[in-house]
Amino acid sequence: MDNKPLPKWQNTLHEIIYEADTPAGKFFDLMLFVLIIISVILVMLESVQEIDQKYHKSLLAMEWIVTIFFSIEYIARIISIKKPWKYIFSFYGIIDFLSTIPLYLSYILAGSQVLLAVRAFRLLRIFRILKLVKFIGEASQLKKALKASRTKIAVFIYVVLILSVILGTMMYIVEGNEAGFTSIPRSIYWTVVTLTTVGYGDITPVTSLGQFLATVIMILGYGIIAVPTGIVTAEIAKSGKDDKKDIDKEPMVHVNTQACPCCGIGGHRDDASHCYNCGHGL
Amino acid sequence: MDNKPLPKWQNTLHEIIYEADTPAGKFFDLMLFVLIIISVILVMLESVQEIDQKYHKSLLAMEWIVTIFFSIEYIARIISIKKPWKYIFSFYGIIDFLSTIPLYLSYILAGSQVLLAVRAFRLLRIFRILKLVKFIGEASQLKKALKASRTKIAVFIYVVLILSVILGTMMYIVEGNEAGFTSIPRSIYWTVVTLTTVGYGDITPVTSLGQFLATVIMILGYGIIAVPTGIVTAEIAKSGKDDKKDIDKEPMVHVNTQACPCCGIGGHRDDASHCYNCGHGL
Amino acid sequence: MDNKPLPKWQNTLHEIIYEADTPAGKFFDLMLFVLIIISVILVMLESVQEIDQKYHKSLLAMEWIVTIFFSIEYIARIISIKKPWKYIFSFYGIIDFLSTIPLYLSYILAGSQVLLAVRAFRLLRIFRILKLVKFIGEASQLKKALKASRTKIAVFIYVVLILSVILGTMMYIVEGNEAGFTSIPRSIYWTVVTLTTVGYGDITPVTSLGQFLATVIMILGYGIIAVPTGIVTAEIAKSGKDDKKDIDKEPMVHVNTQACPCCGIGGHRDDASHCYNCGHGL
Amino acid sequence: MDNKPLPKWQNTLHEIIYEADTPAGKFFDLMLFVLIIISVILVMLESVQEIDQKYHKSLLAMEWIVTIFFSIEYIARIISIKKPWKYIFSFYGIIDFLSTIPLYLSYILAGSQVLLAVRAFRLLRIFRILKLVKFIGEASQLKKALKASRTKIAVFIYVVLILSVILGTMMYIVEGNEAGFTSIPRSIYWTVVTLTTVGYGDITPVTSLGQFLATVIMILGYGIIAVPTGIVTAEIAKSGKDDKKDIDKEPMVHVNTQACPCCGIGGHRDDASHCYNCGHGL
Repeated sequence: MDNKPLPKWQNTLHEIIYEADTPAGKFFDLMLFVLIIISVILVMLESVQEIDQKYHKSLLAMEWIVTIFFSIEYIARIISIKKPWKYIFSFYGIIDFLSTIPLYLSYILAGSQVLLAVRAFRLLRIFRILKLVKFIGEASQLKKALKASRTKIAVFIYVVLILSVILGTMMYIVEGNEAGFTSIPRSIYWTVVTLTTVGYGDITPVTSLGQFLATVIMILGYGIIAVPTGIVTAEIAKSGKDDKKDIDKEPMVHVNTQACPCCGIGGHRDDASHCYNCGHGL
Repeated sequence: MDNKPLPKWQNTLHEIIYEADTPAGKFFDLMLFVLIIISVILVMLESVQEIDQKYHKSLLAMEWIVTIFFSIEYIARIISIKKPWKYIFSFYGIIDFLSTIPLYLSYILAGSQVLLAVRAFRLLRIFRILKLVKFIGEASQLKKALKASRTKIAVFIYVVLILSVILGTMMYIVEGNEAGFTSIPRSIYWTVVTLTTVGYGDITPVTSLGQFLATVIMILGYGIIAVPTGIVTAEIAKSGKDDKKDIDKEPMVHVNTQACPCCGIGGHRDDASHCYNCGHGL
Repeated sequence: MDNKPLPKWQNTLHEIIYEADTPAGKFFDLMLFVLIIISVILVMLESVQEIDQKYHKSLLAMEWIVTIFFSIEYIARIISIKKPWKYIFSFYGIIDFLSTIPLYLSYILAGSQVLLAVRAFRLLRIFRILKLVKFIGEASQLKKALKASRTKIAVFIYVVLILSVILGTMMYIVEGNEAGFTSIPRSIYWTVVTLTTVGYGDITPVTSLGQFLATVIMILGYGIIAVPTGIVTAEIAKSGKDDKKDIDKEPMVHVNTQACPCCGIGGHRDDASHCYNCGHGL
Repeated sequence: MDNKPLPKWQNTLHEIIYEADTPAGKFFDLMLFVLIIISVILVMLESVQEIDQKYHKSLLAMEWIVTIFFSIEYIARIISIKKPWKYIFSFYGIIDFLSTIPLYLSYILAGSQVLLAVRAFRLLRIFRILKLVKFIGEASQLKKALKASRTKIAVFIYVVLILSVILGTMMYIVEGNEAGFTSIPRSIYWTVVTLTTVGYGDITPVTSLGQFLATVIMILGYGIIAVPTGIVTAEIAKSGKDDKKDIDKEPMVHVNTQACPCCGIGGHRDDASHCYNCGHGL
């Protein structure tokens, strides 16, 4: 088995980058978080024309600083882990990669700024960086409840979509071009806007029959909106109860934010000496 | 009793069309589903003027292909079942018929394109085609919860409608013609738009009194929206619990998507040899 | 005690008007319901200018027919009951009176059409007319749940109003006149429109700071909308459970729509021979 | 210990201002509440240009009356309590101060009218003034439920914000300047408007791709809105149950609105002779 410890420099790097137990690790995490926030704000400011025209050079310079730091961090993450592919193809690995390359790509490809949106995903790291174990617990409970109601919600959305197609086609026939219902896809867009109670008002029915139909759709949407709420609520209420029962029955241990130097998995027991996933020494 | 088996060719056709156990049946179902999706997309594309002007002929040709396939399928469904009337007047039978005829009708009747909207209902077949037994289970649970809260929701909608008439009339008197409240029906339309929190903004109060009244209506709507949600949630939570109890008490069996060759009903036990509805051999 | 039975003609009239057990009573109730619906539709049609201009005379004639019938019914209700004041000052008594007088008043007072809106309340009679005992049960359960959560909802609405005043004043200061925030009351109107997720769009923030503040208000509204829903849901779920318990513990009897000829109260036991309220013979 | 009673005049003042047990105290509280409402209405009226131009002098005079009363009340509150700093830096102490100074400040600072919004917070005093112990109980139950679901809601809002940044950036790239998506911050504003189902309609997608994306965002928002509702509902339902249990198990006593003359804390037992917080005699 490939269970020998990492060389010392690699181990130190791993502790700094992947963990938050040492002062250096804490400082690295905090700095990384500040840089992620700066990188997201930069993308926003660049998109505001007045600001971009005035401070174009400063913004570009800062963008380069962020990109270079992200590049170094990305490489450091790869070389300080035993199985780099596991990191590269993990959720965070892909996001880290996509957050780093847009500036390089912008010299080759025109529309590469699309990738800048990906950076916002890095904000999810806050949960690990700030050691918000409690938050992670709540988040995972929410995730569990949403996962449990996944099938129900899928069925529900599918039925809503079919309904939207049918009602949209009806409104297209009833209202016609003058009111903005210029095609069935646009009518379906309007129906979804109405059923979800968003109601922009960019397209509105003008004929009496159309307004009557719209009224029916709205009251329908009123009843329909209750369904996903009901599903999720029932699931959360249940998961809350199950958790309580679990506490009574099963023993629980405290986990920390330490990450395995081999496979990078986190959430180990405080008293763990080996990774529960790959068996590597911690 | 009329319990003799179907002739062989009819039996084979039945297996292909109504069931999804044989490779031929699976292929047929998949092809049917693809054609249903194509037929819905065709209806949408035809409604977009730019596309229809450019590709009118191709779209019409494809519409004919879909229509002819649907026609054949409809006839095959009728001749391969023992009691065709049961199919013809079933929910799916009527939808299949209405999805097939619009193109034929368009040469006789002008407004027959209305029927095209019906096609979207065929998308509901996905549940049977993809053998999504789990989905069907969830759907039926949702349906049960909605059914149980049917009376409560009816009472609620009736009261909301009465409220809309009263508040709409009040707004009509307060606001008058300038603000768009040109008649009581239009005012009622506005009230429903407001109570359901859709809020298009095509009609909005402009006088101080009207805006004050609108504020009251909105806060009322805020409280009212809670009621259907509460009803459905309570019902779903209860049905979830009841299901759990049922599992403890009553034995359950797995059902499959096989359909009776005689009456066309589905959801038989895996080990069933006779239809639970008409007693015909499976 | 004033417990002697009514004279015969009065008794018969009472049976026809207040009860629905005899064929004559059923016919009267049905006719009344049809007339109520016609009276509401008449009010609506009169408000549509094009229709009113064309059919003014016919509409006025029908309005007179409805008004005369309502007048006769109102008088009959008074003379066929032993304690007329109880009826006159009851909820339905006041509504019946206000539904009858607008046409008479319109010759004396100008703005008396306001009272026409009251007619819609008469639609609530459907519950009694159609003997929808089941519906009444559901309605009373809803009413009980709403009543139980009354205090919580009052507290909630009071806090929302204070919040609206504060946020509205802030938006007035931030946005100013150009964006439509011309005064604090108008800004409060906008805040309620936003907090309740109605969102007309007649007033919208245009400055960056205003849009940022609006974003915060919307997310706040998002969280706030959960509160009344949560209150009502918890109450309905509880009332559902309580009902179940009650069924196990307490015996229940079936009630009918018969009304006491003396005090007019309904909901008597099927086997009742005296009014449970005033002791008068049924 | 500094436990000696207050001098008599101070004690009497304390009873009048902080408590509502004596006729003088009741009168003071009622008058205060009326003045708070007047002060809030004054702020509103001053902001309506037509009214302000006509009645500027009267409004200013009344504003001075209110301000002087508030000033006297503020000073009286400070001198009639043993530990004034506790009051000055309490929630209500700060609000009382900020509600008093705007008029004085307006002669020194220009934008000081911002502080007028703070006055609305004083309306929260109604709970204490009107001795609405029942309301306070309900409010505290709501507060407890919201507090318990605080972490879950924080996680939820954080994820919604990240989602808004990502979806907003996508819409900015897809739609561009013509449709109103002039910068990423504005696009994020639009995304929040859509996700929360407010839907002003001041910015709306015009391209087909943008409308398709908007449809996806709306359906997403539909599902997302269920989450906070589910969280709060589950929490309220649970707190309701816990309360019931508590009643069975733990003894409860009635508390009154009396406030400690030393530290100002309220909610003492009816039979209390010493403050539960500082031990001072009541």
